[in-house]
Amino acid sequence: MPEHRNTQLSRSMCERGLEALVLLPGPTLQHIAGLSFHLLERPVVAVFRSDGRSALVVPELEASKAEAAASIDLLFPYGEDESSRSNAFARAVGQMSLDGLTIGVEPLRMRFLELRLLQEAAPRASFVSAESITTTLRILKAAEEVDAIRRAVRVAQAALDSTLPLVRIGMSEHEVASELTLQLLRAGSDPETAFSPIVASGPQSALPHAVPGKRRLVPGDLLLIDWGARVGGYVSDLTRTFAVGEVDAELARIHDIVCRANAEARSVVRPGATCSVVDQAARRVIAQSGYGEHFIHRTGHGIGLEEHEPPYIQEGNEQPLAAGMTFTVEPGIYLQGRGGVRIEDNLVVTEEGSETLSTYPRGLKVIP
Amino acid sequence: MPEHRNTQLSRSMCERGLEALVLLPGPTLQHIAGLSFHLLERPVVAVFRSDGRSALVVPELEASKAEAAASIDLLFPYGEDESSRSNAFARAVGQMSLDGLTIGVEPLRMRFLELRLLQEAAPRASFVSAESITTTLRILKAAEEVDAIRRAVRVAQAALDSTLPLVRIGMSEHEVASELTLQLLRAGSDPETAFSPIVASGPQSALPHAVPGKRRLVPGDLLLIDWGARVGGYVSDLTRTFAVGEVDAELARIHDIVCRANAEARSVVRPGATCSVVDQAARRVIAQSGYGEHFIHRTGHGIGLEEHEPPYIQEGNEQPLAAGMTFTVEPGIYLQGRGGVRIEDNLVVTEEGSETLSTYPRGLKVIP
Repeated sequence: MPEHRNTQLSRSMCERGLEALVLLPGPTLQHIAGLSFHLLERPVVAVFRSDGRSALVVPELEASKAEAAASIDLLFPYGEDESSRSNAFARAVGQMSLDGLTIGVEPLRMRFLELRLLQEAAPRASFVSAESITTTLRILKAAEEVDAIRRAVRVAQAALDSTLPLVRIGMSEHEVASELTLQLLRAGSDPETAFSPIVASGPQSALPHAVPGKRRLVPGDLLLIDWGARVGGYVSDLTRTFAVGEVDAELARIHDIVCRANAEARSVVRPGATCSVVDQAARRVIAQSGYGEHFIHRTGHGIGLEEHEPPYIQEGNEQPLAAGMTFTVEPGIYLQGRGGVRIEDNLVVTEEGSETLSTYPRGLKVIP
Repeated sequence: MPEHRNTQLSRSMCERGLEALVLLPGPTLQHIAGLSFHLLERPVVAVFRSDGRSALVVPELEASKAEAAASIDLLFPYGEDESSRSNAFARAVGQMSLDGLTIGVEPLRMRFLELRLLQEAAPRASFVSAESITTTLRILKAAEEVDAIRRAVRVAQAALDSTLPLVRIGMSEHEVASELTLQLLRAGSDPETAFSPIVASGPQSALPHAVPGKRRLVPGDLLLIDWGARVGGYVSDLTRTFAVGEVDAELARIHDIVCRANAEARSVVRPGATCSVVDQAARRVIAQSGYGEHFIHRTGHGIGLEEHEPPYIQEGNEQPLAAGMTFTVEPGIYLQGRGGVRIEDNLVVTEEGSETLSTYPRGLKVIP
């Protein structure tokens, strides 16, 4: 693992009273140990002690991948039968002296399967959330990480540019989403793309997490597209909302309001401003226009190796922003049964203020 | 939820002494309640009591999606702040009378986050693995489910047919994987594809779970492609291994052995045969050829809404096969540092025996 990340990890663990940290495959393990596994039904856990020692419990057929990693001291491979598995956990717990310790885990990643195997092997250990550690480790992006996000933004924008001319009245959401995914790959996204695009039309656009369906575009629809690319592991995450033919005056009006809320929120981003201040800036514009109750989610979330990660740009989050943080600003107004608008950009906090990485035009473009 | 699935669920719970079942978003929740959510950092849990009552704890911004579902009796939406979240869990636990019960959870899906929220709200409940229930519920596929897998096989085969003519010496694994993903979408895969294709060349092909990299194809390489499509939520999962130019005699020989192991294993599939018998059939061919120690994984796994699910075709699994089970047969031989071969097909057990859904030629095709 890069020396500075190793040191940073040990320091974070000590500060929070953790004697060990257990990670499952995912962005944090990738970040601190350069290890990437596809997690399915076979458990894989990496153990880090605050004194710097590390171990990995891993299926035999993945062991050769781990042997190449300089970041792991001890390997505990197991075979296809259950006893070999619990045996490997027992040996790892024994050699790393984990029983009785306070062990941090990732609350969004640790599963019941691995937790029970660990608890059986270390019945006197106590397991606590290590979210604050894993958060801190990845929240400030290095220049090369910001560059990867910048490239992921460019790829996403190029893919939408190639897709929009093909979008026609009568196409289904599903067809638009497939075409966009295809263009993301053509434009240079990693094969493991960021996430499935949201393509939501008409009343569906009022559902923030709509899944693209068979509904076909009709004149008068709002068409909301929430999409992103992944480059070198890092994601972009953008949203634009379009008019299919002519939309009614109120839908055009909420588009204008969301556009202003987006700009207002972006304008207050700088080192030292809190997450909640950015959220409030967007929320104020929408509330003053009379649509406060229709802005039903937070203003944004961090982006990096994960599509959603800290910092969360929301009410009550008094975390101050700092140079190197990367996140979305994505206010929205959702009129149930009619349509919704969201405009989402990606920002990086700089020493002087901020830079909006995404440049795709935000005005209400009409799809003829 | 479909009436028969509801009844089946209650009966399964009673048989196993479970008073409640808690599901996170995923295939089982989709199967029994028709509910699909994108699981990120906000917890979503569905609770089913053995008496038939059900409840869902869900973020407010997903609530409208849940309201449409006839399968859920009670909704507990929560807002963006932490207290609203633990409140919703407490109310759900109270109204469903969960405290003190034996509650089944999915070991591969339940996360530390949701488990702790449930344990705080129901401190006297005990949480146990419900794997045997969720397994039983989905293991026998209905005709329309087999049809979806059949279509996913067709889409995958069509995509490889469109990709192979574009593969050239000098292309990178990554480029081949991108092209194949793109062709999967063109051929009609769901936008949320099955999984990222494995494209592994030369020595990389000896790693069963290799990730496509920058390595470029050179003459003499084996080229292993493990890919699949998703149609209507159901996956296919195939592997073929090709020769790049002329490969040495031993590599051609292991290809031939794996081909025979694959055919032998497929030939013994019928209702009543156990999973381990199928595994042994493949293993015997490879062992008798002197490569037993190089077949380092099980012979196959179930496929359905998940890319890996029961039945697991492996040593020691004495589960008898039954009509409607769908799974892979995928023996392999891996020579570290030189190359590996895997040939993977998808089968359904029928009343009379079995049907191999995949028809892609298995012989050693040469990429010129």
